[in-house]
Amino acid sequence: MIESITAGLRANDRVLLGPGDDAAALDLASPVLTSIDVLVEGVHFRREWSDARSVGRKAVAVNVADIEAMGGTAYAIVVGFSAPGDLPAEWALDFATGLRDEASRAGVDLVGGDVTRARDITIAVTVLGSSSGGPIVRRSGARPGDVIAMIGRTGWAAAGLTVLGRGFRSPRAAVEAYRVPEVPYGAGASAAAAGATAMIDVSDGLLADLGHVAVASRVVIDLRREAFEVPEPLQVVAAATGTDPYALLLTGGEDHALAASFPADAALPEGWRVVGAVRSADDGPGVLLDGSPWAGATGWDHFGSGQRGRR
Amino acid sequence: MIESITAGLRANDRVLLGPGDDAAALDLASPVLTSIDVLVEGVHFRREWSDARSVGRKAVAVNVADIEAMGGTAYAIVVGFSAPGDLPAEWALDFATGLRDEASRAGVDLVGGDVTRARDITIAVTVLGSSSGGPIVRRSGARPGDVIAMIGRTGWAAAGLTVLGRGFRSPRAAVEAYRVPEVPYGAGASAAAAGATAMIDVSDGLLADLGHVAVASRVVIDLRREAFEVPEPLQVVAAATGTDPYALLLTGGEDHALAASFPADAALPEGWRVVGAVRSADDGPGVLLDGSPWAGATGWDHFGSGQRGRR
Repeated sequence: MIESITAGLRANDRVLLGPGDDAAALDLASPVLTSIDVLVEGVHFRREWSDARSVGRKAVAVNVADIEAMGGTAYAIVVGFSAPGDLPAEWALDFATGLRDEASRAGVDLVGGDVTRARDITIAVTVLGSSSGGPIVRRSGARPGDVIAMIGRTGWAAAGLTVLGRGFRSPRAAVEAYRVPEVPYGAGASAAAAGATAMIDVSDGLLADLGHVAVASRVVIDLRREAFEVPEPLQVVAAATGTDPYALLLTGGEDHALAASFPADAALPEGWRVVGAVRSADDGPGVLLDGSPWAGATGWDHFGSGQRGRR
Repeated sequence: MIESITAGLRANDRVLLGPGDDAAALDLASPVLTSIDVLVEGVHFRREWSDARSVGRKAVAVNVADIEAMGGTAYAIVVGFSAPGDLPAEWALDFATGLRDEASRAGVDLVGGDVTRARDITIAVTVLGSSSGGPIVRRSGARPGDVIAMIGRTGWAAAGLTVLGRGFRSPRAAVEAYRVPEVPYGAGASAAAAGATAMIDVSDGLLADLGHVAVASRVVIDLRREAFEVPEPLQVVAAATGTDPYALLLTGGEDHALAASFPADAALPEGWRVVGAVRSADDGPGVLLDGSPWAGATGWDHFGSGQRGRR
């Protein structure tokens, strides 16, 4: 399967040797960046809620987002695909099409894989990348006086998951956002070049992930509520389900926006918008909204059933 | 879990940034080598046949073997670990101990991971390495006139699996070989330095894997039966089960020996032994034993149930 979907596909020139040998070989400048994410059927996706092509696209996107969050550029992925013997061939082929499509969008090559049997579909993707010339951007570099900015969406995937969980398929845009995150490819490297001091991929929810930055940097991050507009699909879902739309925006995960801190005088790259500021952590690190703690839940649980670990 | 087992562990100095951020960062010279292998409970291992520590060790060893087979040196692994919610904590801790032990033996650091729920234990390991200074050794470089040499064992894991499948736990050495392959760490880099023209990790069985070399190199590989001694545990298992011991030696997989072709005048590195020769493929590529095709089966099937794909 891996070889059939990689035939003729070449997204970038870093691949010295692709699939077919014991290992792939890549021409990557140091530091080399790598991260692994696993998607499990029934935990991270359901076949009745996500088509195979979307699952393939998502598997690539969520991994590339981790390299973006270091300020790097992703060049290659390897994929471990496990599935039951009775999986329809069409599902596997559509999944492979999705992998290929998103890899092409993200500029990464699929350079290796392992296909094996399992009771549930389990997809492990490891991404390899490289710094984009400058230093890598860690979670620990935010400094009091920095601004907090973000690029990409939050709350959309959570809104989609909410309606799917209630048996609906609309708003379509939210459902699509749940199925395939819209990762702002290239925005991580741009942020690094603009001097980002800390950065993270928003996978667990904005408050939760900025909480990781706050703890790693030993700072307080203060978000401004008025910096967030509630997009129309989130208004619809919030109204229909009696949810606070800001709960979706601030705690919904799986959209894979990027959030970063920048020096106050930095010129933000295109698409990045300021949503808060970094202050000293006199009473311990944390994230505030207009100076106060957020009262609601701070993370989003997959289907309310699976809890996903992070590095 | 990942963070707890990596605390304080540092196997080499290539790690610039370990677990805890969106991605790990490594100082690796180009070409960077990478490969992924997935182990699934019920397909690649059974909890009643392999203790958790052995599964952890095996997960590292089989991956590092792929980098050895390119003539490279492995430096880091990332691990995707999926398991049911009712997995005993002791199993997970023992598995982690095994990972840590084998990583230390192999000189690799565990730099990242993802831990998630699944019905079956599923372990995806991606290894990252680098060439050892010389060119990488592919499967396609064997030339008529080369010798075929190998290092490490074959048939031991198959012998162990055979007795486990019949409800026995001895010969102990064979059962242990099935649980944890004894990968000849460092032998791949030595072979590359000695001028190996092609190399492969013997995971599917010597005839099957040398068949991959023969096809990729468009040559015939002729093995000499007298080059193989039948070790005592294999004699025991063969006699007890009415098996041809050479079937174990030549077609048993999962020991992760290395097999390579070298120019006839090359000085073989320590531990490598000549087992055959490369000839021109006048009638198509393939593997022979004393000039004739092997009559038996050429690969080893996991429990007779799972078939494992390869890159």
